[in-house]
Amino acid sequence: MAASSAPPRARALLQQCLASRLQVKPAEPGSGAEWVEAFHWYFKMRQKPVTPQQKIQRGLVIYICFFKGASEELIPKMVNTLLNVKLSETESGKYVSLLDLPGNLLIIPQATLGGRLKGRNMQYHSNIEKEKGMELYSHFVTLCEKELAANTKCAEAGVVVKYGTYGNRQVLKLDTNGPFTHMVEF
Amino acid sequence: MAASSAPPRARALLQQCLASRLQVKPAEPGSGAEWVEAFHWYFKMRQKPVTPQQKIQRGLVIYICFFKGASEELIPKMVNTLLNVKLSETESGKYVSLLDLPGNLLIIPQATLGGRLKGRNMQYHSNIEKEKGMELYSHFVTLCEKELAANTKCAEAGVVVKYGTYGNRQVLKLDTNGPFTHMVEF
Repeated sequence: MAASSAPPRARALLQQCLASRLQVKPAEPGSGAEWVEAFHWYFKMRQKPVTPQQKIQRGLVIYICFFKGASEELIPKMVNTLLNVKLSETESGKYVSLLDLPGNLLIIPQATLGGRLKGRNMQYHSNIEKEKGMELYSHFVTLCEKELAANTKCAEAGVVVKYGTYGNRQVLKLDTNGPFTHMVEF
Repeated sequence: MAASSAPPRARALLQQCLASRLQVKPAEPGSGAEWVEAFHWYFKMRQKPVTPQQKIQRGLVIYICFFKGASEELIPKMVNTLLNVKLSETESGKYVSLLDLPGNLLIIPQATLGGRLKGRNMQYHSNIEKEKGMELYSHFVTLCEKELAANTKCAEAGVVVKYGTYGNRQVLKLDTNGPFTHMVEF
């Protein structure tokens, strides 16, 4: 993590979730919107109580924002930190990492996290340039996918990584058992 | 807002929402859980497309965390800033304040926002003592309620302020048209 005196190069916001659904392509004339669901039982959950089998499908939402000065070498450290921090609650109420849960992962690009208040408006002067941000985001997603695929527990449980489209509006639905919101800066 | 060199006394996280539902009392033997709904059409929205009338019921979720050193005199500035920052999207895609939208408000105590990473765990050493935090939270909620009640647009639109119980698990369901997540420190 960056020393508190140095400006951060990236900011991640973590929320625990039971289920989530993110639009990856808005509706257009002639075609409906496209969505990803981090958790396949999402609609079932709305109809009836969650069964134990469904309960273990919980996971983590990571909102991610890159600042000017962020570069590729930051990504492995970020992914390692975020997948290993013990913020995911087990059935018995113990907190473990996403890898140990094991849980699903939804990654959401969220450049607004880099906003700074100026009067009644937000400014984003510290945010990374869009093209570079897109590269880093793509790298971040790919490395998360690799790490979860390489982890035996995750592979066996069939956990999934889903992610939003960089630059799009992130139309999100989220069900939590407590968002347990944390911020980590790098 | 605090200068970037000074440690913050409070941290607020803002997310825009179309609808939300927060548990304020967990289920106990003999009685079901109690919930508050920031938006009365929440369940309707799940059944059918949002109508124009329902669309204006959107609002803001504020997650709030106080650090050591926060005191009562901080609250008016916080409330003034958060209710007036232009982050709420109108029907026409313009961004205005919550007061100008006008929109509903859901306040969620979220002490986890004060966490700092230490190895694979989170530490909360900078967080305010629980009793003092509860006082500040209560003051914050009350002032938000006053401000919305005193605002003509809000009063006419019948907007509501809902809030979580300090210290409880914040079981939250959130529907957004883009969370548009922002952090403001004080």
